Amino acid sequence: MPARGRKGDVTRAAILDAALALARRDGLEGLTIGVLAERLGMSKSGVFAHFGSREDLQLAVLREYAERFVETVLRPAVRAERGLPRLRAIVDHWLALLAAELEAGCILIGGASEYDDRPGPLRDALAAIVMSWKAELLRALEQARQCGDLRPDTDCEQMVFEIYGLMLMLHQDARLLRGKDSIQRARRGLQRLIDSTASGDPAQAKAARRRRTGKSNNQH
Amino acid sequence: MPARGRKGDVTRAAILDAALALARRDGLEGLTIGVLAERLGMSKSGVFAHFGSREDLQLAVLREYAERFVETVLRPAVRAERGLPRLRAIVDHWLALLAAELEAGCILIGGASEYDDRPGPLRDALAAIVMSWKAELLRALEQARQCGDLRPDTDCEQMVFEIYGLMLMLHQDARLLRGKDSIQRARRGLQRLIDSTASGDPAQAKAARRRRTGKSNNQH
Repeated sequence: MPARGRKGDVTRAAILDAALALARRDGLEGLTIGVLAERLGMSKSGVFAHFGSREDLQLAVLREYAERFVETVLRPAVRAERGLPRLRAIVDHWLALLAAELEAGCILIGGASEYDDRPGPLRDALAAIVMSWKAELLRALEQARQCGDLRPDTDCEQMVFEIYGLMLMLHQDARLLRGKDSIQRARRGLQRLIDSTASGDPAQAKAARRRRTGKSNNQH
Repeated sequence: MPARGRKGDVTRAAILDAALALARRDGLEGLTIGVLAERLGMSKSGVFAHFGSREDLQLAVLREYAERFVETVLRPAVRAERGLPRLRAIVDHWLALLAAELEAGCILIGGASEYDDRPGPLRDALAAIVMSWKAELLRALEQARQCGDLRPDTDCEQMVFEIYGLMLMLHQDARLLRGKDSIQRARRGLQRLIDSTASGDPAQAKAARRRRTGKSNNQH
């Protein structure tokens, strides 16, 4: 029986993969063991053997998504020089990921709206992930300010707020209104925002960056 | 029987009112005739007599919410002079409404995420409402540009995108992360955004505004 044969091969990772695809389509709240089992040609108890409950599965999917998100957005940006180059790389990768995911939707953004008024472990996990992502952004902004790429009076927390807002609007505009220029508008807003806080003298900023960061350019 | 007595008094408007409160709490998708009937002490068929289906009820709630939204945000702003004064009034009223609704959540913002990937009449109605709200904002921005309050090269559609983004971030940040300074951050972003496109000379702008709008100041 093919179902039994396949069943033996399906690892936890493959279940998670299918669950992630399902959550992208139906939201984390739409993710059920029954639909997932059917999709994988497994029995429900086969899925339960790997994830003790529906909530455990939802939490695992959320963490897997967050891990891939950081892997895609942050990891390659860390190769760019600290300061503006790294900040721009992070924002570019984030924008590219959102743009690639517009059809299915971003689980962090959709999930925020899904769980903001449902207390429980999923809401807590989602809030922790969003906070930690905001902290990563803040770190890149503060590095850019410290190395002289951004003006010394830059309010970095305010920048995080405004950058995130542009991403949320891209997500809503492109998904609800099928806006043709949403990506372009988000990119223009991000550029304007970063340019407006960049210190006026790029040569001086670069010299300052080299002085301050020395050989630790590629250190995260 | 008290249920029968109350039932006789409940008008369509009262059902709508209760349905709106329920939708604020559970989302439009959480709105069911059964829960609503129970809340009102009515029979389900009593509710169905006023709204032919669950979807009709959801659509009526959405339209009622949108009407109240425009009433609260736009109507009082139209009393302000065209140009920057009116634009600032719209943004201020919108911010105040969002701030007042943070606990329950905004049905337009929550609904956008709820319905962005569910084709149907609710998604269509929501998209139409959001588009018409964006058009109102755009009109206020274009008036401000035409009367010289905003620089002639202002990209008004871009401004709509960025203003809306700040409102979305306020909603997410305050609701998911319980951010203490979300309202302040949104206000600061809006101020900076509008200030950065305001024409440099307020006296000249005011004169130009008076010249151009003449006696039609209070015309919407």
